[in-house]
Amino acid sequence: MIKVGVLGARGRMGAEVCRAVEAADGMDVVAALDVDDQRSSLVDSGTQVVVDFTHPNAVLDNVRFCVDNDIHCVVGTSGFDQSKLDTVRDWLAHKENVGVLVAPNFALGAVLCMRFAELAAKFYDTVEIVELHHNRKADAPSGTAAHTARLVAAARAEAGLGEVPDATTSTVDGARGAEVDGVRVHSVRLGGLVAHQEVLFGGQGETLTIRHDSLDRTSFMPGVVLGVRGIVDRPGLTVGLDKLLDL
Amino acid sequence: MIKVGVLGARGRMGAEVCRAVEAADGMDVVAALDVDDQRSSLVDSGTQVVVDFTHPNAVLDNVRFCVDNDIHCVVGTSGFDQSKLDTVRDWLAHKENVGVLVAPNFALGAVLCMRFAELAAKFYDTVEIVELHHNRKADAPSGTAAHTARLVAAARAEAGLGEVPDATTSTVDGARGAEVDGVRVHSVRLGGLVAHQEVLFGGQGETLTIRHDSLDRTSFMPGVVLGVRGIVDRPGLTVGLDKLLDL
Amino acid sequence: MIKVGVLGARGRMGAEVCRAVEAADGMDVVAALDVDDQRSSLVDSGTQVVVDFTHPNAVLDNVRFCVDNDIHCVVGTSGFDQSKLDTVRDWLAHKENVGVLVAPNFALGAVLCMRFAELAAKFYDTVEIVELHHNRKADAPSGTAAHTARLVAAARAEAGLGEVPDATTSTVDGARGAEVDGVRVHSVRLGGLVAHQEVLFGGQGETLTIRHDSLDRTSFMPGVVLGVRGIVDRPGLTVGLDKLLDL
Amino acid sequence: MIKVGVLGARGRMGAEVCRAVEAADGMDVVAALDVDDQRSSLVDSGTQVVVDFTHPNAVLDNVRFCVDNDIHCVVGTSGFDQSKLDTVRDWLAHKENVGVLVAPNFALGAVLCMRFAELAAKFYDTVEIVELHHNRKADAPSGTAAHTARLVAAARAEAGLGEVPDATTSTVDGARGAEVDGVRVHSVRLGGLVAHQEVLFGGQGETLTIRHDSLDRTSFMPGVVLGVRGIVDRPGLTVGLDKLLDL
Repeated sequence: MIKVGVLGARGRMGAEVCRAVEAADGMDVVAALDVDDQRSSLVDSGTQVVVDFTHPNAVLDNVRFCVDNDIHCVVGTSGFDQSKLDTVRDWLAHKENVGVLVAPNFALGAVLCMRFAELAAKFYDTVEIVELHHNRKADAPSGTAAHTARLVAAARAEAGLGEVPDATTSTVDGARGAEVDGVRVHSVRLGGLVAHQEVLFGGQGETLTIRHDSLDRTSFMPGVVLGVRGIVDRPGLTVGLDKLLDL
Repeated sequence: MIKVGVLGARGRMGAEVCRAVEAADGMDVVAALDVDDQRSSLVDSGTQVVVDFTHPNAVLDNVRFCVDNDIHCVVGTSGFDQSKLDTVRDWLAHKENVGVLVAPNFALGAVLCMRFAELAAKFYDTVEIVELHHNRKADAPSGTAAHTARLVAAARAEAGLGEVPDATTSTVDGARGAEVDGVRVHSVRLGGLVAHQEVLFGGQGETLTIRHDSLDRTSFMPGVVLGVRGIVDRPGLTVGLDKLLDL
Repeated sequence: MIKVGVLGARGRMGAEVCRAVEAADGMDVVAALDVDDQRSSLVDSGTQVVVDFTHPNAVLDNVRFCVDNDIHCVVGTSGFDQSKLDTVRDWLAHKENVGVLVAPNFALGAVLCMRFAELAAKFYDTVEIVELHHNRKADAPSGTAAHTARLVAAARAEAGLGEVPDATTSTVDGARGAEVDGVRVHSVRLGGLVAHQEVLFGGQGETLTIRHDSLDRTSFMPGVVLGVRGIVDRPGLTVGLDKLLDL
Repeated sequence: MIKVGVLGARGRMGAEVCRAVEAADGMDVVAALDVDDQRSSLVDSGTQVVVDFTHPNAVLDNVRFCVDNDIHCVVGTSGFDQSKLDTVRDWLAHKENVGVLVAPNFALGAVLCMRFAELAAKFYDTVEIVELHHNRKADAPSGTAAHTARLVAAARAEAGLGEVPDATTSTVDGARGAEVDGVRVHSVRLGGLVAHQEVLFGGQGETLTIRHDSLDRTSFMPGVVLGVRGIVDRPGLTVGLDKLLDL
């Protein structure tokens, strides 16, 4: 029985995590904390794996606490950029038995979307990403979109493709989106949306679009449960749920 | 028989215009010019209406020439912003019998898309525009998208809606698009695309999307022909093909 | 204070209706019934308006009961076809003061989608409808899609457009969808979906798509509340929420 | 230099094939035939590979002629069903040196779309296909869609997934599409469209959509050229361009 602590437990995602962990075989919630609670209760409760759905400003400190206390981490909080990843990797260098999983997205469809984008990248000269989320989201682009852009950029580089060509000469600031490793990412924020992403590839007379729609935050839960199960045997930093799948 | 001159006649759009005008009843091409030709032949040929599909940098000078020579203008060149419109309106103030039609888009579906967006605007708190074009396009956002944004913004203002709410606090430059009158516009550029636009509205638990796809530049031709026919009886500046329709 | 009775109150939609009516100004839930309850309690509680989200097989009998007892009805149950509408209209012919609102969809976006489809219909030779719902849905096509098809067909007829042309000569049964008043409707059923509809128009080199996505059943509630308020002053049969809007 | 014969050479696709073959390195058009021409000129011209974009009713007889005359075939004509494939396989059993490639779609994006659909199939309980084409198309569903359905069905079977669940109990004929190996396929026909396909997967609270848009028939040409090059060294029946790619 894996003892799980949930950070951000009273948030929308955290509450779902609590339910999903309780419902899953072989794991239990032993600590459900939110912003005003003491993290020391993670240690007191014997928490083995922490699931963090908190805030970009809080998450790094939470991971530090976990690593220091030999607690594995499954991080779903957005905004976990390269410098944060590097920081965590440094911390883990001195911890042989602690694993941290940072997944920009726990929905299976999102993982497949990223993997297919990576596979398609070498066949197309042009590629852009459009991600669409509810209008309460704090960060743009989404962690998933930024991660996808980096995967696509790496696949292009490996295939010897150069920069994505862009003929724009007259523009209003921001129209052409954000550049993440040379890939344009556009962030739409709209009431009524949940979490959606399109990767668009363009070639001669044709386009290929891979789209993922998360219509309900329960879509993340099978992936979170799988992450909790997998991270206990996977020391070091793991980026992306796909590493725990057989793809 | 309306005598038509085509500027940009060797470009992709201009060549289609020549074919469409020749095929249409009641009009003929009497001058087909491109960048190296002398505009004086417009006057020599007795051109009554010029159709301009040239370049954002050239179009204003072309319109000036036409207005000075009492030739009506149908302008399809993109990048015709508010300051250009104001300039043309000034010129026309002193010309009682010359009409200029500036349409950001001549496709009927684009006109309907804009009109429906205008009608829907007052019912939704949030709205954004995504326009997608082939990757040889020089300007971003497209003239159609900018025009749509302004129509939506005006309809919101009239309905007493305030600013579109945006919770973004952490962003990469450009991710949230360009702001046109307070409406976010995202410009995707991709090989294989032609001209596409989505207006997305978000409300409580639902979204409404109005999308126009121009898959072939012949889609513009019924609108261009209609514009040529209509502008001869419509002195002054007309912005948008919808003014010539019964919507 | 309008006294509201909810039929199907323990179903997903019915439960939301109860919450929405309680939360709205000027109305209260006085009876919340489901399949095993006695409808007589509607009369006993002095119910003025019934909201019915039950089952295609049960709804007509429920409406009969309401009409017989001078209770107004707001019907959201799907599968309310033309013959049912005719039946209800007959009943109401003898009841001067009872109103029944049958709306195939209460989401504002759905109503706009239908209205815009009706407006666009005359400009396009070809049109089809794709509706997509969760895979627990019992009926296909959805009431909204069938209603939209009929609106589009009527608008085409009024504009003098003939049959939608179809060149299909070799087909597998069902591939080309269902015909509703000559308009093809395709019903997709998929896990993870909620309620979605696309109306696609095709012309020369272009298409226009109007899409509505209901991602959460709360999207119906503003429309239901508006229906309850409006039906008390609108005797007879009203089909479609748009009649109560200012469109 | 591969000697290529084109059947259906005056059709839209055939004419593009002629251009593409002429433009490609290492091959030439030596015979360009259409419905009224004698196939004997294929033999007279020393044609090594025939490319067939004709009609479902004509194609099998064309392939027979080629196989009898030891000419390789690249078949792009739609409507090539299982019984036709079996027939051709029988003919080829006695011909050691003749290759026939039947590809339901030559666009690279279509091939990727099918491959990704095959990979994703095992992760989702529900799946449907929507294909959309111009309204001059004779067959429904498209060959690509039917082929995709069969690939998805095979992947489901291999993963031990049962039938796609369907709760529909009340339906209008055709609403739920055609069944191809248990996978529902919907065929939309619309003016302005070219060739488009969506494979939609639905899981818990999420959907994954893989979409291919062919906006221009030149999108098929890189694949046709690749097929001509590959089939000369690949005796027997090959179904699907993906067999010639490194995916």
